[in-house]
Amino acid sequence: MSDMGLVVVGAGGRMGLALVRAVHETEGARVVAAVERKGSPAIGKDIGELAGLGPLGVIVSGDPLAAFAKADGVLDFTAPAASVEFAGYAAQARIVHVLGTTGLKADDDARIAAAARHATIVRSGNMSLGVNLLALLVEQAARALAAEDFDIEVLEMHHRNKVDAPSGTALLLGEAAAAGRGIALSGNDVRVRDGHTGPRETGSIGFATLRGGSMPGDHSVILAGNGEVITLSHHAQDRAIFARGAVKAALWARGRKPGLYSMRDVLGF
Amino acid sequence: MSDMGLVVVGAGGRMGLALVRAVHETEGARVVAAVERKGSPAIGKDIGELAGLGPLGVIVSGDPLAAFAKADGVLDFTAPAASVEFAGYAAQARIVHVLGTTGLKADDDARIAAAARHATIVRSGNMSLGVNLLALLVEQAARALAAEDFDIEVLEMHHRNKVDAPSGTALLLGEAAAAGRGIALSGNDVRVRDGHTGPRETGSIGFATLRGGSMPGDHSVILAGNGEVITLSHHAQDRAIFARGAVKAALWARGRKPGLYSMRDVLGF
Amino acid sequence: MSDMGLVVVGAGGRMGLALVRAVHETEGARVVAAVERKGSPAIGKDIGELAGLGPLGVIVSGDPLAAFAKADGVLDFTAPAASVEFAGYAAQARIVHVLGTTGLKADDDARIAAAARHATIVRSGNMSLGVNLLALLVEQAARALAAEDFDIEVLEMHHRNKVDAPSGTALLLGEAAAAGRGIALSGNDVRVRDGHTGPRETGSIGFATLRGGSMPGDHSVILAGNGEVITLSHHAQDRAIFARGAVKAALWARGRKPGLYSMRDVLGF
Amino acid sequence: MSDMGLVVVGAGGRMGLALVRAVHETEGARVVAAVERKGSPAIGKDIGELAGLGPLGVIVSGDPLAAFAKADGVLDFTAPAASVEFAGYAAQARIVHVLGTTGLKADDDARIAAAARHATIVRSGNMSLGVNLLALLVEQAARALAAEDFDIEVLEMHHRNKVDAPSGTALLLGEAAAAGRGIALSGNDVRVRDGHTGPRETGSIGFATLRGGSMPGDHSVILAGNGEVITLSHHAQDRAIFARGAVKAALWARGRKPGLYSMRDVLGF
Repeated sequence: MSDMGLVVVGAGGRMGLALVRAVHETEGARVVAAVERKGSPAIGKDIGELAGLGPLGVIVSGDPLAAFAKADGVLDFTAPAASVEFAGYAAQARIVHVLGTTGLKADDDARIAAAARHATIVRSGNMSLGVNLLALLVEQAARALAAEDFDIEVLEMHHRNKVDAPSGTALLLGEAAAAGRGIALSGNDVRVRDGHTGPRETGSIGFATLRGGSMPGDHSVILAGNGEVITLSHHAQDRAIFARGAVKAALWARGRKPGLYSMRDVLGF
Repeated sequence: MSDMGLVVVGAGGRMGLALVRAVHETEGARVVAAVERKGSPAIGKDIGELAGLGPLGVIVSGDPLAAFAKADGVLDFTAPAASVEFAGYAAQARIVHVLGTTGLKADDDARIAAAARHATIVRSGNMSLGVNLLALLVEQAARALAAEDFDIEVLEMHHRNKVDAPSGTALLLGEAAAAGRGIALSGNDVRVRDGHTGPRETGSIGFATLRGGSMPGDHSVILAGNGEVITLSHHAQDRAIFARGAVKAALWARGRKPGLYSMRDVLGF
Repeated sequence: MSDMGLVVVGAGGRMGLALVRAVHETEGARVVAAVERKGSPAIGKDIGELAGLGPLGVIVSGDPLAAFAKADGVLDFTAPAASVEFAGYAAQARIVHVLGTTGLKADDDARIAAAARHATIVRSGNMSLGVNLLALLVEQAARALAAEDFDIEVLEMHHRNKVDAPSGTALLLGEAAAAGRGIALSGNDVRVRDGHTGPRETGSIGFATLRGGSMPGDHSVILAGNGEVITLSHHAQDRAIFARGAVKAALWARGRKPGLYSMRDVLGF
Repeated sequence: MSDMGLVVVGAGGRMGLALVRAVHETEGARVVAAVERKGSPAIGKDIGELAGLGPLGVIVSGDPLAAFAKADGVLDFTAPAASVEFAGYAAQARIVHVLGTTGLKADDDARIAAAARHATIVRSGNMSLGVNLLALLVEQAARALAAEDFDIEVLEMHHRNKVDAPSGTALLLGEAAAAGRGIALSGNDVRVRDGHTGPRETGSIGFATLRGGSMPGDHSVILAGNGEVITLSHHAQDRAIFARGAVKAALWARGRKPGLYSMRDVLGF
């Protein structure tokens, strides 16, 4: 099979350039087009040069329709309005659309679902293979180990410049634990502990947050029982893992029938 | 429902006493009989006194048949010949038989299988809930993450008096990883690294062993990819976890139809 | 040199029995007397029996003076009033006094200092060798690595029944870090993070607390820099480490000239 | 005080460019010259452009003497012959020479020592602040905790392409532990464990090696005692830490009297 030809949209931004590099390093995939919004200073430049890879012969353009026509799939971490439009083009071209854009509203969702009748769409708020796998394992562990026996805690550490806590990924892991337990996270989460806390409440899900240095993000889910502890952890070395996961998703989706898929499908669950 | 009445066989030994304590601390279970082989000095003594719990009113006897007749289940970490006999008695009494004995031969296995037509037998070489769950998660992770992308390593640490390496549990986890990858562990395992090793071979499963102090046993399975690492770990605080897992298995098995079950069934997989 | 003869005061309590067991397992030390307050039900019983060691031939008595007269040292985790009295007796007998009692007031301290003119007193609020060593290493690391470069975080995990946060040991480690940095902990500590926190403040010392299961206590001090992280951790497997540290302190103090020592001295710093 | 003016030698290589970036990101330091060997294609180019920082107005030259004349210090990770020459020039210019080059022979060492009569030389085979600090802490911990009580193990993990084991840093940490214990590492190290090993030998120092993924290097020294474990770890996120440590060393050395210093001095030990 020939390499999968991918178009990167929002190609001149930080995530777009990471996607270009991730495609470039992946066997079986290549960048066939790079799209930016009209007026972007990236237009007209070689996307390989911009990404620090040397010239790739792919010039950034402002015309998505032409780009999609020659591609097998599109990698999209842009913005809701643009992503809805790209999903429509992907449906017309009957290609793969890997959609990592967040912040979509209900009517955006409906239009994505409509596009998925003709496009093969993989959509996730977090494209890291590792984080998605961890969430699946956490859900299963939380289901298998009763709340009376095992307490669940979510620990995360991020760099010193992160301005909110807990991280979105920590909350995603907490949701996975709650789903496994058949409870809502909201109302069962313990966000902080200081001073006289009293004994831990059975069935609660605790969070703890560390900040410091330059770490892109570490997450651990701890299931602590009587005499034994299970810890399920993810360590991110760099932010390129989201781009790599998107390329994985594209390769997985190639040749599959149209529909709306998640990273769970990519992972084979 | 009334408490599940359990008989502990081999009650006077180290594991037997741990089982008695585990039953005693578990809601919904109680010790109704304690059995030792004829001639044991434990016979005639109160099993609660021997276990450091104070008198329970259960006197250790040498008569398993009478003991099984008044029980809902039996907890058995003894020896192959005794366990085969106990399985037969459990079948007669149509009760639960939790079987943690190791070292059974093929014809022992056949007799256990025969007993499972009338007894509800849960059998495992490692009764820890946590270790069994970890093995299941490892198998899934190894299946979901391709060998080209994620390298698998198994790390274990045990106390200074352990005389072999890697631990049986480390090998069990390595087998789970190999099963997830669809390969045999044998031939793909890397047991030691020292000096010039060359680059890591894709698809191999590495082992590393630490020894020191008094730790009952820590195990980690590391899936290391490009830019991210997933670590799945189990920490054992004390050896009572095997006894607690056996009691869990008994409670799970109560009321189920006869058959041969594993800890995977108990965990709901 | 003959074994060091030790008297355990408060011998019938939980900590007293742990001390008896720790002495019993230590080469070069033995229990020569066990003291309880008058009226204790332990008086008249063999302390070895009470500690689950079998008879040691040492009968618990209510007479500390007689006990101290035949000992080389005393292990004391009792209460302020009793400890002040015991320090006086240790001074009279010119022996070692290992003092783990907490909650002493200023005038108690003065009387301990007075006793130290004739007794060799080792005093600490936390007798674990490991925790004391960790605090020393943390102080040095915090001194060597500038606040502009390395952020300090203190993480602790304890069992589900602990009712306050952070642990006393976490605060002790935070104090050690602050001392290394030449700042007060108070005013520079960040106890909780939730919601919009803003970026981490340079020079602050963060705390995070986990609760669950049955762990006696894990502590980590994390120094997170640009591109590298140092983590200094202590894991307690059981509460006997405090008793073992006290016995170590006694053996270290034997033959030293009278004075007031700390675990730093025992560790050779 | 004005910024410290630094010259980077070997500026066009991978380490040279990392040094340029590290100087650029450090408050109080700036690149005033960049030197390459004659004939290097980097000569004549702006070093900022080569390092991906945009133009800095510093053109790579082949003339070290002119470069040293306008600098306060030099950063040197080149080769033995070049480094000996650069030390001589640094002595003439009476400036700081941070020397990270490895592989020097005894007579090279003698010439470095001679240069240190007039130059302020900081020399280390590993310029990471964190690793050097860890080694110091390990040595102290190993000294404070007796071999009879605490077993020492060194664990390291590196990326899949590392071809030897254990890592140089793991051996450096093992040496630090041995120094703390007052023994030689050689003869007391246990490099591998597989099969029947027998119980751990008191006083030995064990090594374990993990390989996988893309991690630049994680190291842990574990001191495992009876009931407690101390773990001292270093995690490297990227290879730039060696360059950052070199810049730190230069800033530390500025204004100090000539002599031969190590990273221990920089860390204040």
